[in-house]
Amino acid sequence: MKKKSKRIKSKKPESKTSFSLTDVISMQDFSKHDIEFILEKASILELMHSSKKKTILFGKTVATLFFEPSTRTRLSFEKAAQDLGAEVIGFADPNTSSSGSKGESFSDTIKVVERYADLIIARTPIEGAPRRAAEISSKPIINAGDGSNQHPTQTLLDLYTIKKTFGKIDGLKIGFSGDLKYGRTVHSLSKALSHYKVDQYFIAPKELEMPQYYVENAKKSGKVKLTEDLYKYLGELDILYATRIQKERFPDPIEYQRIKNVYILDSKILSKVKKTFKIMHPLPRVNEIDPSLDETPHALYFDQLSNGIPVREALISILAGVKK
Amino acid sequence: MKKKSKRIKSKKPESKTSFSLTDVISMQDFSKHDIEFILEKASILELMHSSKKKTILFGKTVATLFFEPSTRTRLSFEKAAQDLGAEVIGFADPNTSSSGSKGESFSDTIKVVERYADLIIARTPIEGAPRRAAEISSKPIINAGDGSNQHPTQTLLDLYTIKKTFGKIDGLKIGFSGDLKYGRTVHSLSKALSHYKVDQYFIAPKELEMPQYYVENAKKSGKVKLTEDLYKYLGELDILYATRIQKERFPDPIEYQRIKNVYILDSKILSKVKKTFKIMHPLPRVNEIDPSLDETPHALYFDQLSNGIPVREALISILAGVKK
Amino acid sequence: MKKKSKRIKSKKPESKTSFSLTDVISMQDFSKHDIEFILEKASILELMHSSKKKTILFGKTVATLFFEPSTRTRLSFEKAAQDLGAEVIGFADPNTSSSGSKGESFSDTIKVVERYADLIIARTPIEGAPRRAAEISSKPIINAGDGSNQHPTQTLLDLYTIKKTFGKIDGLKIGFSGDLKYGRTVHSLSKALSHYKVDQYFIAPKELEMPQYYVENAKKSGKVKLTEDLYKYLGELDILYATRIQKERFPDPIEYQRIKNVYILDSKILSKVKKTFKIMHPLPRVNEIDPSLDETPHALYFDQLSNGIPVREALISILAGVKK
Repeated sequence: MKKKSKRIKSKKPESKTSFSLTDVISMQDFSKHDIEFILEKASILELMHSSKKKTILFGKTVATLFFEPSTRTRLSFEKAAQDLGAEVIGFADPNTSSSGSKGESFSDTIKVVERYADLIIARTPIEGAPRRAAEISSKPIINAGDGSNQHPTQTLLDLYTIKKTFGKIDGLKIGFSGDLKYGRTVHSLSKALSHYKVDQYFIAPKELEMPQYYVENAKKSGKVKLTEDLYKYLGELDILYATRIQKERFPDPIEYQRIKNVYILDSKILSKVKKTFKIMHPLPRVNEIDPSLDETPHALYFDQLSNGIPVREALISILAGVKK
Repeated sequence: MKKKSKRIKSKKPESKTSFSLTDVISMQDFSKHDIEFILEKASILELMHSSKKKTILFGKTVATLFFEPSTRTRLSFEKAAQDLGAEVIGFADPNTSSSGSKGESFSDTIKVVERYADLIIARTPIEGAPRRAAEISSKPIINAGDGSNQHPTQTLLDLYTIKKTFGKIDGLKIGFSGDLKYGRTVHSLSKALSHYKVDQYFIAPKELEMPQYYVENAKKSGKVKLTEDLYKYLGELDILYATRIQKERFPDPIEYQRIKNVYILDSKILSKVKKTFKIMHPLPRVNEIDPSLDETPHALYFDQLSNGIPVREALISILAGVKK
Repeated sequence: MKKKSKRIKSKKPESKTSFSLTDVISMQDFSKHDIEFILEKASILELMHSSKKKTILFGKTVATLFFEPSTRTRLSFEKAAQDLGAEVIGFADPNTSSSGSKGESFSDTIKVVERYADLIIARTPIEGAPRRAAEISSKPIINAGDGSNQHPTQTLLDLYTIKKTFGKIDGLKIGFSGDLKYGRTVHSLSKALSHYKVDQYFIAPKELEMPQYYVENAKKSGKVKLTEDLYKYLGELDILYATRIQKERFPDPIEYQRIKNVYILDSKILSKVKKTFKIMHPLPRVNEIDPSLDETPHALYFDQLSNGIPVREALISILAGVKK
């Protein structure tokens, strides 16, 4: 959100009871206090009666601008906004948006929509576009994913899921498997976890291993173990955060087939894991997690998805009330 | 809806005052009691003041998943849900749904959406998909049409229209014209009418005549007459349910032109029919009914369409309140 | 809106306190009184508290049928309807509308939607289609643009913007620049301004000059000046209404480049214009107005866009309450 000179500044800019951001663009912008503030707010909203929740943004309008389709994320944001009593306008698909085809710039689209909405949620294939939107807009912007760059609400719902499930984040042993080289969700969550005392396990083939930057960062806040073997540390883990290995990453399709199948989670893992062990996944999955695990107490991925609602409600309700 | 072991069972599972279904998938699942229960509920909702109706599903969310576009059906369901005070999320078009393109299975899409919505309305080109959805989902499913298989809300609104117009269903003489061989609506309505004492008339060319199964079924509850001649029994009928003859059914386009024109309803019928005679049609029509009939008292097809609203409201309000 | 014989006629059909139209199709249908009535109503709605506004159309449904995409116009209408408490159904794109592909006529689509909605907003590429819709429909129609023909809500928001900014319309000196030959917005606004005492300046290249019909019309209510030179009268103007010059109008692309650049508004104009001078534009702009002007007090184009909300609210609230 552009800071206008006439903007009324919050009286307590960095107090322990406030949220310091006026836009949600990147997890890099979140202090530990900001994260904790959102998690706390989400847990309050999750327990709130719908009739009370409906009054929070009564009379407000939220715009959802999906410059690339993403049904899951869009429905989650729209439900969150509606649960808070806001009206939703927007587009689900660049093809139903005429602006681009008439040659309008991205800047002008934002300047138009800020006139209609109290808060803008933007999904775009272009990295950095939401940051640019925040610079232009006099209304708060929430980044709902910009290419392979950031998807901060995913990371916040991941953190919320961990805290809600285990009652804490500190002290946990959290593994990541799959594509750790390119995986946006993994990088963002691993980074955010370094605010806590967490041991991190990176389980990936050589071709897709965690970049050195994130490994070093993880070491600051806990022990780090790297392996290609899915089973090696499985018994130690509290959580395994599995991700998809994308075909496009491999020049050789046979190599892809081999590697992909190595990291499939199925009933074979059941005898190895702790009783309280949980599997997380950002969804959609293709075949990384066998559906036979869905009904086990280890499957946390659909609850994780549900947690996106209170987390997005927390962000929307806080930002839409920000004074300008 | 998947029956969980922890589901609180209705206290009166088959009493005269309850509805036995937790999903609306096929007319085959409806007992006569279920049908009557919906028709009664629809007539109550049709008379209810909008401010009272708006409270029924306040705070609830209904998802409309249109895996193939169907504007008329979608708008009708969305209006019904909104009239009841529910919020609506969903997609109108498979192209604006990213799930498929990311390789997500239909099962996972349902498992995702059940986390966001209290009730799911699904339209799909694939026969049987809504039944599968009901097996997976912990939330009620309403089938809004699955290929050439079922479209139960169409049949219920047809029955509601007949009862509302004539004050009864028993004792009526109801004809069907057009494509009786492939017509999903005709098969489903004819079958449902066999719960009542109705005489049925099947008026179609040899190539498109009513399948023997439905003819036999109709005979159980009333007299049945078959003819190729639209005019033969026209003076006897209370209702003629006209349907479209689709070009695709005919290998020979000349044969199509000949047959299509034989079953057109226009002002020529006016001198033959009873004063109270009504024409029904599932819409859209192409040229089966001449627009000159629209303003006559015989045209029931747009009222029939309007009746879709209270019928869908009845189903949505009952199912969204089902205990799990 | 089709006038049914059973329609209850307004008691004061042409009184000074009523609006004479039951549909908004063309600015040609608006008397000066009608225009003033809408501007007055819009100014009341702009100041009304959202919780009061939300009750105006509570329980009503507005349909937005966009037979061609137009995001800006659609979002503006949807926000206006939602601010008034109405529910919105519709489609954003002809491709998500199945009606056309099933061979349904435009007439039947209107006859269907009038059963679901209390008011219909239609955007179509076909000139005259909204007029046809109004003849068919028993519910009010608002034209949201029909090809190069009419876009009456744009003209009304332009007038509202002028009156709100200057406190009056009479006595102003208003210039138009760009494509005055084909520009729908320019023709419509110039015509509407002839209800007031306004001097009009037409600034365009020979190839794109204002048609004689509009020039003559403008002369009836004030002085008229024509020029190819953007700067010639710039110091006299209260308002310059800039429009886009479309490439498609020119057989010779070099000629297009030359002309286009002549009418660009940028910081060079600042030393020439009055302190109170304002720039209007229907948006989207391409390069007609340099973004460096956006932050100057002369830029009125985004406020102009915002004014579309109260103007559309005025029209929707008046028409949706029309007795039938």
